[in-house]
Amino acid sequence: MRIAQVAPLAESVPPRLYGGTERIVSYLADGLVDLGHEVTLFASGDSVTRASLVATRDCALRLDPHPHTSSIAAHFTMLDEVRKRASEFDIIHFHLSHFLHFPFFENMAHKTVTTPHGRLDYRDLPDAYRRWNEFPMISISDSQRKPLAEARWLATIHHGLPYSGQPVWNGSGGYLAFLGRIARDKRPDRAIEIARRTGYRLRIAAKIGRDDRAYFHETIEPLIDGENVEFVGEIGEAEKVEFLGNAAALLFPIDWPEPFGLVVIEAMAVGTPVVAWNQGAMEEIIDEGVTGAVVDSTEAAVEAVYRVAKLDRSQVRAAFEQRFGADRMVRQYVDAYTRLLDF
Amino acid sequence: MRIAQVAPLAESVPPRLYGGTERIVSYLADGLVDLGHEVTLFASGDSVTRASLVATRDCALRLDPHPHTSSIAAHFTMLDEVRKRASEFDIIHFHLSHFLHFPFFENMAHKTVTTPHGRLDYRDLPDAYRRWNEFPMISISDSQRKPLAEARWLATIHHGLPYSGQPVWNGSGGYLAFLGRIARDKRPDRAIEIARRTGYRLRIAAKIGRDDRAYFHETIEPLIDGENVEFVGEIGEAEKVEFLGNAAALLFPIDWPEPFGLVVIEAMAVGTPVVAWNQGAMEEIIDEGVTGAVVDSTEAAVEAVYRVAKLDRSQVRAAFEQRFGADRMVRQYVDAYTRLLDF
Repeated sequence: MRIAQVAPLAESVPPRLYGGTERIVSYLADGLVDLGHEVTLFASGDSVTRASLVATRDCALRLDPHPHTSSIAAHFTMLDEVRKRASEFDIIHFHLSHFLHFPFFENMAHKTVTTPHGRLDYRDLPDAYRRWNEFPMISISDSQRKPLAEARWLATIHHGLPYSGQPVWNGSGGYLAFLGRIARDKRPDRAIEIARRTGYRLRIAAKIGRDDRAYFHETIEPLIDGENVEFVGEIGEAEKVEFLGNAAALLFPIDWPEPFGLVVIEAMAVGTPVVAWNQGAMEEIIDEGVTGAVVDSTEAAVEAVYRVAKLDRSQVRAAFEQRFGADRMVRQYVDAYTRLLDF
Repeated sequence: MRIAQVAPLAESVPPRLYGGTERIVSYLADGLVDLGHEVTLFASGDSVTRASLVATRDCALRLDPHPHTSSIAAHFTMLDEVRKRASEFDIIHFHLSHFLHFPFFENMAHKTVTTPHGRLDYRDLPDAYRRWNEFPMISISDSQRKPLAEARWLATIHHGLPYSGQPVWNGSGGYLAFLGRIARDKRPDRAIEIARRTGYRLRIAAKIGRDDRAYFHETIEPLIDGENVEFVGEIGEAEKVEFLGNAAALLFPIDWPEPFGLVVIEAMAVGTPVVAWNQGAMEEIIDEGVTGAVVDSTEAAVEAVYRVAKLDRSQVRAAFEQRFGADRMVRQYVDAYTRLLDF
């Protein structure tokens, strides 16, 4: 198949920093190339891919040193280029949120597919989608679809990671892990309270975005003592494996409808079980009693930590291999493209 | 003429709070109705207008109580509605920044005109415009055009205000005024320093946006003593007239390429002269020695304050009437529409 992948321009593909969408696009594009497809990746010029890269912008928006950039203008330029070359592709796969590409591809919606990577409970999305309701969509969890249930959903395809063949870590660090971004919705305060009550040490590896600095300084920093609660800052991919692998469990006590939660399957990939709040896609992703626990309260989380710390870590890893490998994700996308072309 | 005006959805038309673009759209739409044109205003449903209002969204985005709104989806819904009704209009006038409407009106660019209301020195704009270079544009100052000089500019039309027939205020409050938004680029710190050196009291009437709270608390608040420097908070339209009218001069010591600066002509409208930094459109708007002074340094600003405080305030007002009335603005837009239709 001749497949175009269209990535957001916020980060390069894969991202140098935090950026789940661009990582998944990277795994998908490379995975499709490995299966023998002819893949063109539309992304920022600092991307690294085995597909043919087409870039209408030399660097990702977040890393651009220019003080004033326009996300809309940058994406419109890219989308115009995709449209000009549309006849070169059998299928065009968009990874953009909020339908930015819809007006460009109205007369060829049938050969496009859209994976929104974010939450969909925005007030303006249903009204807008109704005006472009021919566009086929793929959700990253069943939970993600709910606010836009009436859209033309082809499939749910869970994210996957190309982590097979790596060792299972034994969690011997004896701590609980919090990994991601310091933000009110991610509830690091809950993680600290859960850890305190279990007697486990908590290690927090997280980025602090500009908007979240006040929250960090006012609410979280006073709770960090460097012993029972340690803040290790933002960490890279390599450190992440060790950080997660040495943890007794990952805490994911989120307070928002997380449509997937990549860090949850990153933990599973190294054998580390997860205790997550019952929000968004967590019930779909965590196999209760096998890879972790889904809870509704701090009390239940404390109890779950003791329980999941005793789980067989090779079984956690086996569940990851079975459900969340990149190969499975790539194959499911190929199936979806094929069904779309057969219509 | 059958004219559509398409406003941004950030604020209602006119805005309940801060929002220069929506105010100008309001004056223009009502002014066109007064001239006998058939005007349709596309704007949020809480707008108040003498034109026919078409709203695809019940309230402005900034006042929406829903925690998650999508500006892109909201504008796309409106633009699709404008496009569906396009045949009802001779001319469609867009007041949107960053070209959001370009992909929708490619096959009828000739009957559209776009007034961007913001700065244009965004890195991504020239590349994007080149792909839609049929779209006729109107600048709000000659200065605004510079970063996008090659666009199809039809005219520069300065903003105008419908303030004729009101009294000339005498500036008897004996203070200098700072009005607008507390933000690093607006340089309230410069205003404070200028006032201190002149011996005048400074009164600051300003909104503090969420992003600017830290700047206010760290940099400006310590300089406010309630006597020589007074902070009066955000004020409404009625209070604004009094606040400006009683001031000896308005200080506008900006540090960014302001494409127009509505507050400068609001001051002139009540007879109050302006001391502004030489940035953006200031040299176009201020008549040196008649309505104020344009300066490059704090020293020059201090000297200019004494000078402009002695200007004849009825001459300031006369210059406003001649150059910055709403009638003149509306007539110029009608001229531009007429030229466009004659092509």
